[in-house]
Amino acid sequence: MAVLDHKGDKLDIRIMKQVPKVIFGRGSFKKLPEVLSDYRSDGYIIFFVDHAHKKTGIVDQIPAEKDDLVFVIDTTSHEPKTDQVDELRDGILKTKKGNLPALIIGIGGGSAMDISKAVSIMLTNEGSSKLYQGWDLVKNAPIRKMGIPTLSGAGTEASRTTVLSAVDKKYGINSDQSMFDIVMMDPDLLDNVPEGQKFFTGMDCFIHGVEASEGSYINTFGSAYAKQSIELCTKVFMKQGGTNDDLMVASFLGGASVTNSEAGVVHAMSYGISLVLGYRHGLANCIVFRQLEEFYPKHVPVFFKMLELNNIKLPDGVTKKVNKEEMAVMTKMTYRMARPLTSALGENWKDILTEEKIASLYAKM
Amino acid sequence: MAVLDHKGDKLDIRIMKQVPKVIFGRGSFKKLPEVLSDYRSDGYIIFFVDHAHKKTGIVDQIPAEKDDLVFVIDTTSHEPKTDQVDELRDGILKTKKGNLPALIIGIGGGSAMDISKAVSIMLTNEGSSKLYQGWDLVKNAPIRKMGIPTLSGAGTEASRTTVLSAVDKKYGINSDQSMFDIVMMDPDLLDNVPEGQKFFTGMDCFIHGVEASEGSYINTFGSAYAKQSIELCTKVFMKQGGTNDDLMVASFLGGASVTNSEAGVVHAMSYGISLVLGYRHGLANCIVFRQLEEFYPKHVPVFFKMLELNNIKLPDGVTKKVNKEEMAVMTKMTYRMARPLTSALGENWKDILTEEKIASLYAKM
Repeated sequence: MAVLDHKGDKLDIRIMKQVPKVIFGRGSFKKLPEVLSDYRSDGYIIFFVDHAHKKTGIVDQIPAEKDDLVFVIDTTSHEPKTDQVDELRDGILKTKKGNLPALIIGIGGGSAMDISKAVSIMLTNEGSSKLYQGWDLVKNAPIRKMGIPTLSGAGTEASRTTVLSAVDKKYGINSDQSMFDIVMMDPDLLDNVPEGQKFFTGMDCFIHGVEASEGSYINTFGSAYAKQSIELCTKVFMKQGGTNDDLMVASFLGGASVTNSEAGVVHAMSYGISLVLGYRHGLANCIVFRQLEEFYPKHVPVFFKMLELNNIKLPDGVTKKVNKEEMAVMTKMTYRMARPLTSALGENWKDILTEEKIASLYAKM
Repeated sequence: MAVLDHKGDKLDIRIMKQVPKVIFGRGSFKKLPEVLSDYRSDGYIIFFVDHAHKKTGIVDQIPAEKDDLVFVIDTTSHEPKTDQVDELRDGILKTKKGNLPALIIGIGGGSAMDISKAVSIMLTNEGSSKLYQGWDLVKNAPIRKMGIPTLSGAGTEASRTTVLSAVDKKYGINSDQSMFDIVMMDPDLLDNVPEGQKFFTGMDCFIHGVEASEGSYINTFGSAYAKQSIELCTKVFMKQGGTNDDLMVASFLGGASVTNSEAGVVHAMSYGISLVLGYRHGLANCIVFRQLEEFYPKHVPVFFKMLELNNIKLPDGVTKKVNKEEMAVMTKMTYRMARPLTSALGENWKDILTEEKIASLYAKM
């Protein structure tokens, strides 16, 4: 299906992959054992859970049975890496003597869910996960997988990408095989998220909506999802009575909107910040977004208002100590993001976002 | 999964089934041969196409190959019936000596798509389709199916129901098995829809959005979909520059919103009108809706404005010749719709919608 692929040559026609089954509602996490009973006859289950949930108690509520595997994932020291995924895969195959699981579950934010997505793909595809970073490179059908967000914003639960960092790049496995088969959304699970983290991850969602809707790659579908996502995010972060339910749905629709459009200048530049300086994605986006009023004149002022209302102070001068080589890596990373930059700035984006321009924008951050 | 089913006992937790793959864009219908090439190795394909497309030329564009079956469905003389579905199923099994198709495709409005959904289920489930009208009664996995709407509004392309009329009732096969596996949405296909038909089917969508969002069964997800659906419908029928793209997405989101809520008083009463008087669904809804301002005070005035702007005149006195027995059938039909009526009016809906009240409302129509 060359013409109908996701590679973006033919943008008049888009394929939208949707999560086929979504379980939504407060208290649904408690019903997980019932949901899993449909899969147990097919084999064991692997759980990847964010290490933050050792504290929140969610780790103790995981309904693991005797042959299941539970991995507690450290998402603080770094975002998901290709080497990390490859090692997890090799370890599982060794432990289980090549016996594949019936289901893989990711419980956490974008990082834990991305780990679960990546391992589900890598258990059935040979070589390193590096080989599959890009568009539509995955060959074999993955293990079935389920996402349970406990942090909302990144939209990982609804997106067809799995973002991994290798040494020289941060790049997605963009593939239908990255989609979850089931997503369970229980707003109760957001109750323990620290306010700061909630804000930065929520801004990932707001920025997805802004980039998707302002990009030329948008269609009527993407626009409908982006609008609602922005509206719900605004309700939450402009303190208009938005709840965790709203934030959870906003995140899902934000992920879905990007499928029908593309990210934009913010993501193109924030990947560089994360790669070289190690800032986490949500914060990196914020550091970039506040300097991009010239590209997003309608939304950056709203963002400043959100910072104020939520008492968030962003770090200044984060690129101060970046040397020439590092700047080159950051610029190269930005230049890899041709698709989002074309959507945001047009075919001639390189004329607008010259190397000097990128350097001067980074310098302000 | 007793607790997590769709039967509505536990409305705090909902399962939302989504179409896993949506192909969207002008010109996508021309790419159908490419899409089908992914399925051809698994067997033959059955096409159900609305007979209106003998005139529009779509019938001639169907990429059927030698073992495929093409059924042109008369959707004017009546809406899909259980007997009709059973006969189609028996005929296919006889012709193909029990050999099942790789894919079933419905091309048309709600009727042609519902026929394709019903046959996909009935080819793998025994007995009459009457047996499966209700909630979650389908036993076996159906044949894979694809919906290609050429008339937008009913939301059939995104819904988990297949509406069929039997002798004494009009009722849905409400089941995950009623969901399409793929939907192709090509706004070009709406170009030849007569304005009147476009209006009445479009109003089905508007009314879905209204009923879903005003019902107590709504959740944050359903609300997001319903809002966008109403907004896009309004853009089209309040003549605010809405396009066929907008109407197509509105219909899809309207179908999705009902999955996360329920229909309401309009659908509960319009089924009676269709069943006894034979009015088509979209028109029957309109006949009912204009008399229900007491239940939908915010939206019925908008509907009157839409009638005016689109030069639509509804028939008067349609129930004039209804006799006592027929009124009893219509009332009984309305009373079967406990779920939508509970969502709309609360647990004690029978105290509000007494038999006398129903009769007096019908009498006004």
